[in-house]
Amino acid sequence: MAYFKNIEKIKYEGTDTKNLFAFRHYNPEEEVMGKKMKDHLRFAIAYWHTMTQDGSDPFGESVNKRSWFGKTPMETSKNRVNAFFEICEKLGAEYFCFHDVDVAPEGDSLEEFFANLDEITDLIKEKMEQTGIKLLWNTANMFSHPRYVNGAASTNNADVYAYAAAQVKKGLDISKKLGGENYVFWGGREGYETLLNTDMKFEQDNIARLFKMAIAYSEKIGHKPQFLLEPKPKEPSKHQYDFDAATTMAFIKHYDLEGEFKLNLEANHATLAGHTFEHELAVARSYNALGSIDANQGDLLLGWDTDEFPTNVLDTTLAMYELLENGGIAPGGINFDAKVRRSSFEMEDLLLAHIAGMDTYARALKSAAKLKEDRFFDDLKEKRYASFHKGIGANIIAGKENLETLTNYALKHDQIEMESSHIEYVKSLLNDYLV
Amino acid sequence: MAYFKNIEKIKYEGTDTKNLFAFRHYNPEEEVMGKKMKDHLRFAIAYWHTMTQDGSDPFGESVNKRSWFGKTPMETSKNRVNAFFEICEKLGAEYFCFHDVDVAPEGDSLEEFFANLDEITDLIKEKMEQTGIKLLWNTANMFSHPRYVNGAASTNNADVYAYAAAQVKKGLDISKKLGGENYVFWGGREGYETLLNTDMKFEQDNIARLFKMAIAYSEKIGHKPQFLLEPKPKEPSKHQYDFDAATTMAFIKHYDLEGEFKLNLEANHATLAGHTFEHELAVARSYNALGSIDANQGDLLLGWDTDEFPTNVLDTTLAMYELLENGGIAPGGINFDAKVRRSSFEMEDLLLAHIAGMDTYARALKSAAKLKEDRFFDDLKEKRYASFHKGIGANIIAGKENLETLTNYALKHDQIEMESSHIEYVKSLLNDYLV
Amino acid sequence: MAYFKNIEKIKYEGTDTKNLFAFRHYNPEEEVMGKKMKDHLRFAIAYWHTMTQDGSDPFGESVNKRSWFGKTPMETSKNRVNAFFEICEKLGAEYFCFHDVDVAPEGDSLEEFFANLDEITDLIKEKMEQTGIKLLWNTANMFSHPRYVNGAASTNNADVYAYAAAQVKKGLDISKKLGGENYVFWGGREGYETLLNTDMKFEQDNIARLFKMAIAYSEKIGHKPQFLLEPKPKEPSKHQYDFDAATTMAFIKHYDLEGEFKLNLEANHATLAGHTFEHELAVARSYNALGSIDANQGDLLLGWDTDEFPTNVLDTTLAMYELLENGGIAPGGINFDAKVRRSSFEMEDLLLAHIAGMDTYARALKSAAKLKEDRFFDDLKEKRYASFHKGIGANIIAGKENLETLTNYALKHDQIEMESSHIEYVKSLLNDYLV
Amino acid sequence: MAYFKNIEKIKYEGTDTKNLFAFRHYNPEEEVMGKKMKDHLRFAIAYWHTMTQDGSDPFGESVNKRSWFGKTPMETSKNRVNAFFEICEKLGAEYFCFHDVDVAPEGDSLEEFFANLDEITDLIKEKMEQTGIKLLWNTANMFSHPRYVNGAASTNNADVYAYAAAQVKKGLDISKKLGGENYVFWGGREGYETLLNTDMKFEQDNIARLFKMAIAYSEKIGHKPQFLLEPKPKEPSKHQYDFDAATTMAFIKHYDLEGEFKLNLEANHATLAGHTFEHELAVARSYNALGSIDANQGDLLLGWDTDEFPTNVLDTTLAMYELLENGGIAPGGINFDAKVRRSSFEMEDLLLAHIAGMDTYARALKSAAKLKEDRFFDDLKEKRYASFHKGIGANIIAGKENLETLTNYALKHDQIEMESSHIEYVKSLLNDYLV
Repeated sequence: MAYFKNIEKIKYEGTDTKNLFAFRHYNPEEEVMGKKMKDHLRFAIAYWHTMTQDGSDPFGESVNKRSWFGKTPMETSKNRVNAFFEICEKLGAEYFCFHDVDVAPEGDSLEEFFANLDEITDLIKEKMEQTGIKLLWNTANMFSHPRYVNGAASTNNADVYAYAAAQVKKGLDISKKLGGENYVFWGGREGYETLLNTDMKFEQDNIARLFKMAIAYSEKIGHKPQFLLEPKPKEPSKHQYDFDAATTMAFIKHYDLEGEFKLNLEANHATLAGHTFEHELAVARSYNALGSIDANQGDLLLGWDTDEFPTNVLDTTLAMYELLENGGIAPGGINFDAKVRRSSFEMEDLLLAHIAGMDTYARALKSAAKLKEDRFFDDLKEKRYASFHKGIGANIIAGKENLETLTNYALKHDQIEMESSHIEYVKSLLNDYLV
Repeated sequence: MAYFKNIEKIKYEGTDTKNLFAFRHYNPEEEVMGKKMKDHLRFAIAYWHTMTQDGSDPFGESVNKRSWFGKTPMETSKNRVNAFFEICEKLGAEYFCFHDVDVAPEGDSLEEFFANLDEITDLIKEKMEQTGIKLLWNTANMFSHPRYVNGAASTNNADVYAYAAAQVKKGLDISKKLGGENYVFWGGREGYETLLNTDMKFEQDNIARLFKMAIAYSEKIGHKPQFLLEPKPKEPSKHQYDFDAATTMAFIKHYDLEGEFKLNLEANHATLAGHTFEHELAVARSYNALGSIDANQGDLLLGWDTDEFPTNVLDTTLAMYELLENGGIAPGGINFDAKVRRSSFEMEDLLLAHIAGMDTYARALKSAAKLKEDRFFDDLKEKRYASFHKGIGANIIAGKENLETLTNYALKHDQIEMESSHIEYVKSLLNDYLV
Repeated sequence: MAYFKNIEKIKYEGTDTKNLFAFRHYNPEEEVMGKKMKDHLRFAIAYWHTMTQDGSDPFGESVNKRSWFGKTPMETSKNRVNAFFEICEKLGAEYFCFHDVDVAPEGDSLEEFFANLDEITDLIKEKMEQTGIKLLWNTANMFSHPRYVNGAASTNNADVYAYAAAQVKKGLDISKKLGGENYVFWGGREGYETLLNTDMKFEQDNIARLFKMAIAYSEKIGHKPQFLLEPKPKEPSKHQYDFDAATTMAFIKHYDLEGEFKLNLEANHATLAGHTFEHELAVARSYNALGSIDANQGDLLLGWDTDEFPTNVLDTTLAMYELLENGGIAPGGINFDAKVRRSSFEMEDLLLAHIAGMDTYARALKSAAKLKEDRFFDDLKEKRYASFHKGIGANIIAGKENLETLTNYALKHDQIEMESSHIEYVKSLLNDYLV
Repeated sequence: MAYFKNIEKIKYEGTDTKNLFAFRHYNPEEEVMGKKMKDHLRFAIAYWHTMTQDGSDPFGESVNKRSWFGKTPMETSKNRVNAFFEICEKLGAEYFCFHDVDVAPEGDSLEEFFANLDEITDLIKEKMEQTGIKLLWNTANMFSHPRYVNGAASTNNADVYAYAAAQVKKGLDISKKLGGENYVFWGGREGYETLLNTDMKFEQDNIARLFKMAIAYSEKIGHKPQFLLEPKPKEPSKHQYDFDAATTMAFIKHYDLEGEFKLNLEANHATLAGHTFEHELAVARSYNALGSIDANQGDLLLGWDTDEFPTNVLDTTLAMYELLENGGIAPGGINFDAKVRRSSFEMEDLLLAHIAGMDTYARALKSAAKLKEDRFFDDLKEKRYASFHKGIGANIIAGKENLETLTNYALKHDQIEMESSHIEYVKSLLNDYLV
């Protein structure tokens, strides 16, 4: 059964098209800087926002119209698999991502949950083989169930910790079965509701313990996806331990997890933490830890995660430039961790919203490539830091100077002329690069 | 000459006093948990806010009335030393902190600046010997002068870097001369105005280089104060590299500076970064890196550093509790990095505002001590994490479990009952602890 | 059937009690400034947070344990009525508030909904008569159902508008039946998700139309509760038209609704709008429009409505002071629009949380009364504005001056000395007033 | 003497130019929608940011290099007039704006200040006649001097009030002399530092009194510029009474100033208040009160007024669209209340930054015109609100319905189907309109 019968596979038709169900900018096979757009972008569709998000919010009921509900939870789950792969194929997205609870009902026991997962992931595997669509990453949802009210690896209840460990084990087993390229941990409740009753150090020690068990198990089963931590500052927790990229790096370093873990960065999480997305990407790059991205956008005037589909061309271009600087995002990808606005409750909005997001990233790729090819930022920075490539500057970089030699130098060179980098002009010129 | 002729040394008079120039709660010699209040609190007066802050803001001129202006910059500087020690003595504060530019005029050359510093610090040394007041920390102001428009250690101009190095060397020489117990780096412009023209990695490498030079020089001259980094997320920079405690720890670890550097944490910087002050203190404690604090408070509805004198009893109590948990703050202290409101422009407001801040911390100390003595938080947490002290929980902590053993356990223990910790009741009861 | 069998009516026992289920500060019959505490405070319990809020959040499932679920929606609704009045009685709260959908199932048609409402409100009426508990206000929930995705009175769909009108009519009929003292409009979706497709003027005209119909109908049926508008800046909408008190006053004035409408102000809505609660109360007072309050508190470091039970003594005291300045809050009241934290999921937390909130307001009342009796703020302000009570100042107030006469005056009086009001001292002294 | 000798009058050269000192998009004589770009845009240069802003910030000294300093304050002021008109001419800006203190030294007395103003405004008048450049608006700076520490019209000191009145009278005299088209009030300190010592109602009454005196005087001298109030939520004050457009409208209505006052809206002030700029413009339009705009942009991740030159094309397009919907902005204009970044401290940055801003608004105008011509938003809204143009919807608008008739209708029409407006598609398509 097809869920979007009247909609063909989405094709590139350029900006003159009147067809809503067409790409205006994304042309998968088109080459940019010697590589196909689809290989630059490695688009992934998120199972949760696409299949199970229902349009409810803290003040409103479910509103999304979806035609895949069956008579039993398992029937619904199976219908969703079919619908999901139809969507991925129609969009031409070659990757996908999911949480365990997105795909299979939890049932009444852990055993039942595992059995459901086995059955559904068999079906998913079949679909993957049929379509060639690949698993970018999977993860375990360890934040929605009431048992996780105080966290999973950071819980105060040892039985909950064991339950979480079981979900992670199953997640890794599934990753192996489906050839997952990455495995993500997002700690939605790994943080605190209030510091008054929380032992932060104890909880973080426990989180690190679970990660080490995951590494060990991954090695044991001979399947090592790239482990990724996904920072977010807050929501649902009042404070989430993986606040932002830098905070997460401190954790990774403190618990000797460098080399094992990289970061999965999300635009809306960046802004909630008080950063631009490009900042978080640059921080990750500076630590050699940029793993994958969750593509969306937030509303900077709102204090919660709106998870909008990315349509801001300027912001996305600056993010895409960081990806190019990183030498690409593989084995990570660009995962649309984005949901349709509540007013976009119709089935076809799922396609329209992804088209909007993919077109935006396609525009951004073209703009970023042009900036790179023209050495727009490279030249600016080279000129700006020129003094460190010669004389005293070069000596500093080479480690040849110390406080005393520099003091002697400074006493003779204390009338310093700075230069403007005309940043307003730069920003205006940058606009002409936006496709 | 006395600047506050009509005001005696401030004494503890209790809450019934009608005397504005009296402590209502701070009683320096009174013992709390077996230690004198003054030894718990180690109050320090900040030279800049007390002596050179003029009450101007981005929309308003200098408003503060101060009687220490002389005919030349050096005469003013000398008058300030006298006035400052009078203030410290009248308040009974045993420590102080300063930037180089606070105490001496920069003159027209680095050489002149150094000569001015030598002369003034001689005078300060004399005053310290007379009064017994000690140097908590000094630092170099490497953010106000136009040469630092693009940062100091993170500058794009090598000559500026050399100049900064010279200031740091002089700062350490002064620290040695005055027996400074700590030395602080606050990187007001170690960050960026825009990422468009910034090489973040390059700049942070350079910052680390300067810190290593400082350590080396400190060892060479045989004077090792505790080095402290002071996080702040932004302002004046759009982004400051030492965003918050965790970010700064990532930097410290990345550049192998652990063991050499601890943190100087400020309440208002915490809230600007989106954290409570107690959060930042707890993070620092979890990394064994709580060095000293800048006591003030911000206005959470304003987006800039208001540096108000601390008067919020609840917030200060929670901060003080972290200090007790840390086993005290020495060799650090409680430095009033706080300025009088613009409308408090009279000389005597300097005393009144410090009295308010010291009384608030005194109240907080007494409240925190009672919370500690009653095991208010200790019992709450012990009960809450009890499941990790026995059975499977204890095994997890002991490192005896792995994903497979925990999965087996979870399959048999998957119906988990959580318990409420009645947090609303806890918060209400906590109010009764506030002095 | 009793839902809280083991818990007696909550009594005042003072701060020495070890009994969790006791008031530590709220003593209903105790007189403060010549009036019983309960008559000052007019506490109301909110039906929604108490009876139907389930502990879910955007990332987590329902977690609250509640024993009132029956076999059918109507049975559950009836059980809730019994449980609710038990809670009100045990707490000694004399008022309550509800939305239509809180108390009765919506069924499959509007007709069915109305029938359900009739049946349940009959039961409520009976309970009210038995217990003496009164209706502070009711309202219609016109934001949760999918039909309201684009607003109710501000919807783009005329049928939705008609549906909303029907809910308002029924709400007023119920108000008459139950003797409601106020009637509230909170426009959760009366705003926009995006301005791109919104005609703000058109939508606000329509909102005003509905309000005028409500006034007309109210007059027709001979029952005029005080109409109240409840401002909130955003959430769930990106922008809500009744952003804050002042914005709502502009609307009220523009559509000639002054005299008919006052404001129902909520602490957490104030802070989301960038204001303190006391600011919003003061604004309402300045427009003679302070109607009633929703008592709760937010977390200023979080960007969404946390609706916490109020426990902050300082903030609540400043709010309570405004209520005293207003000559009391009647016919409004103090409604606990607050929900238990997600970790407080047990039945008894409903009582504990309300006790915490009621104790906090009781403390606040006592503190505010003392501030009033001592003329703490009155004397401060009288002294501060003294220059307007004589000479040129009095002439200005009396309307006797103009730009020319004032210019002549100023030319002769241009060397002006201002005075400090020692605000840091004031804040410190204020702390000693907090109970 | 020419201050920018090597720079010719800026010309439009298109996007292929390599000349920094050229417009890439702004072509003053080019027609858009049948009107010259310059007549749509009515660009004005702000005297303060251009002439007196020195690049200092709360943590840094003056950094801007300016060549117009003379030997006396008056000589500097005269040089500035020459330099300013040179800048306006080179940019081709036909309007300008200023505060009294921007143009003339305050001297030691009010009398001296007035004399200085007379002399300088004579010179300005001469320059205006020579160049044809016109005064968009002037205003009095009543927030920088220490006398205004507690406000001007909202001060607690009657002598300060008189001083402010004198400045307003002089401002109106100057407006008459120079043919000012508008007169602005921005109340930087008309608000409070703390509510603890503030009588909000008293202060707002006094503000309204001053405005009425201004109207009366304006009528008396036979020169009525459009009076404008400029909202800003905070900074420097903790709270500013004219928080945002809606708040200011409440004030205007409350004091019967409608018809006399419109709004001067600033982009950065909008975002500080939690709104988009287009929101504030739409609010003003809905009250028929859009007077003029201060063109700049803020950084939504920073909590203070950054006053950046506008370079964001999307945001500016949405603002410009509102101006077109308003039927243009005359007699107001687009005033660049924007300052060069601190790192753009060179003289020529003044020109480059204005070119960037003017080009951005030119792009925005072209984009907005295309959106208008294609009825992009018009068609979207017409379709979306269609149900109100017929049947029950039309009856509602016509005032023919009431709660009873609508209830009857709703009982029969309670199964409502909503439609998606595919907002993600709309946002993506909108991007293709950006020039």
